[in-house]
Amino acid sequence: MSVQQRLQEMNITLAPPSYPAGAFVHFVQTGNLLFLSGHIARRDGKSWTARLGADMATEQGRDAARSVAIDLLGTLSAATNGDLERIQRIVKLLVLVSSDPSFTEQHLVANGASELFKEVFGDRGAHARSAFGVAQLPLGSCVEIELIAELK
Amino acid sequence: MSVQQRLQEMNITLAPPSYPAGAFVHFVQTGNLLFLSGHIARRDGKSWTARLGADMATEQGRDAARSVAIDLLGTLSAATNGDLERIQRIVKLLVLVSSDPSFTEQHLVANGASELFKEVFGDRGAHARSAFGVAQLPLGSCVEIELIAELK
Amino acid sequence: MSVQQRLQEMNITLAPPSYPAGAFVHFVQTGNLLFLSGHIARRDGKSWTARLGADMATEQGRDAARSVAIDLLGTLSAATNGDLERIQRIVKLLVLVSSDPSFTEQHLVANGASELFKEVFGDRGAHARSAFGVAQLPLGSCVEIELIAELK
Repeated sequence: MSVQQRLQEMNITLAPPSYPAGAFVHFVQTGNLLFLSGHIARRDGKSWTARLGADMATEQGRDAARSVAIDLLGTLSAATNGDLERIQRIVKLLVLVSSDPSFTEQHLVANGASELFKEVFGDRGAHARSAFGVAQLPLGSCVEIELIAELK
Repeated sequence: MSVQQRLQEMNITLAPPSYPAGAFVHFVQTGNLLFLSGHIARRDGKSWTARLGADMATEQGRDAARSVAIDLLGTLSAATNGDLERIQRIVKLLVLVSSDPSFTEQHLVANGASELFKEVFGDRGAHARSAFGVAQLPLGSCVEIELIAELK
Repeated sequence: MSVQQRLQEMNITLAPPSYPAGAFVHFVQTGNLLFLSGHIARRDGKSWTARLGADMATEQGRDAARSVAIDLLGTLSAATNGDLERIQRIVKLLVLVSSDPSFTEQHLVANGASELFKEVFGDRGAHARSAFGVAQLPLGSCVEIELIAELK
């Protein structure tokens, strides 16, 4: 089954980044590697503000991480002119979780993104990953994820 | 206009890192990628200590990020034996901002660095980026930036 | 002297990661680069919980970083089918230190890992590095390290 078919089955519609990146760009290709900028969690077109361990539960954090992964797929699609079959491998995720110092389940939050990539890309979606808790994210967002992918 | 001419117009003088890296090195080349170590903000030869949202305003943080970008240029110059024309692309920045948990403008702080790279390198300076707030940085510095560049 | 001989002299025994990575994998190879997932500090098979500047001193943090470096060597060994001579270069470390906002010696903690790589690999172990203080790490661990290596 193609990536496109899997996305349809999962009822996922992709969109390119809807906001200007400003002084930076959403992705850069060097050789056959794609480096994607950190994408923050958004809801209703705005930053999804929350802090894990304070006003957001782990399960909601997973949902936020999953939504960021879908936004990253949108950027991957833009970077490949809509042909996600050109993605050979999801190489690495850097998952930043806005965390109260008492919160220690960043890995479970990050799984919301990791599992989506596995579901969509199968073995090509199995990636290396780091997840950790940060003091704060831009615009007060709850989760930010940066991604490296390999192109065919 | 060459990178060197642009730097002269902007009155920017570059210097190689003035402090020993210790157990690590300032940069590593692998293939045509250059990985630069995280550079902390310095002033008067010492760590520029401050925390955003506590004792430093966003605008000052921008200035600090810009000064780190100039230090990174100095390291890029050292890595290319003084020939910055060999830099094909600034690929990615990782911008760490020492942040009180209430501070949510890490992206504006990071712009101080991003805009400098664009000014100096033009389109080749447009990079992917992640910016986030950390609990603390080495030597109490306010900003630390890590960089990946592509060589011609 | 070979890497294997040096490890024997240092009384270091390597093991592959003992826990399942879950939704992600311990390493991904792309071209001749190896991206290793963030490895957290472990003791007695469990997360080594502590926060620098609160209930752990810098010197202990160094020991924890060194132990993570040994775990990373175990993963590098697994990634090269036991032949660490295939590691051409340790390219970059990302060292995350669980930090009270008052703690500013993340670089000294990170040296515990950096020095081990230099001891084991010699010049090939000299790497770029970023170290910083995070609000919290998965499972309350004190240190997490992510690594990029170049293969021959």
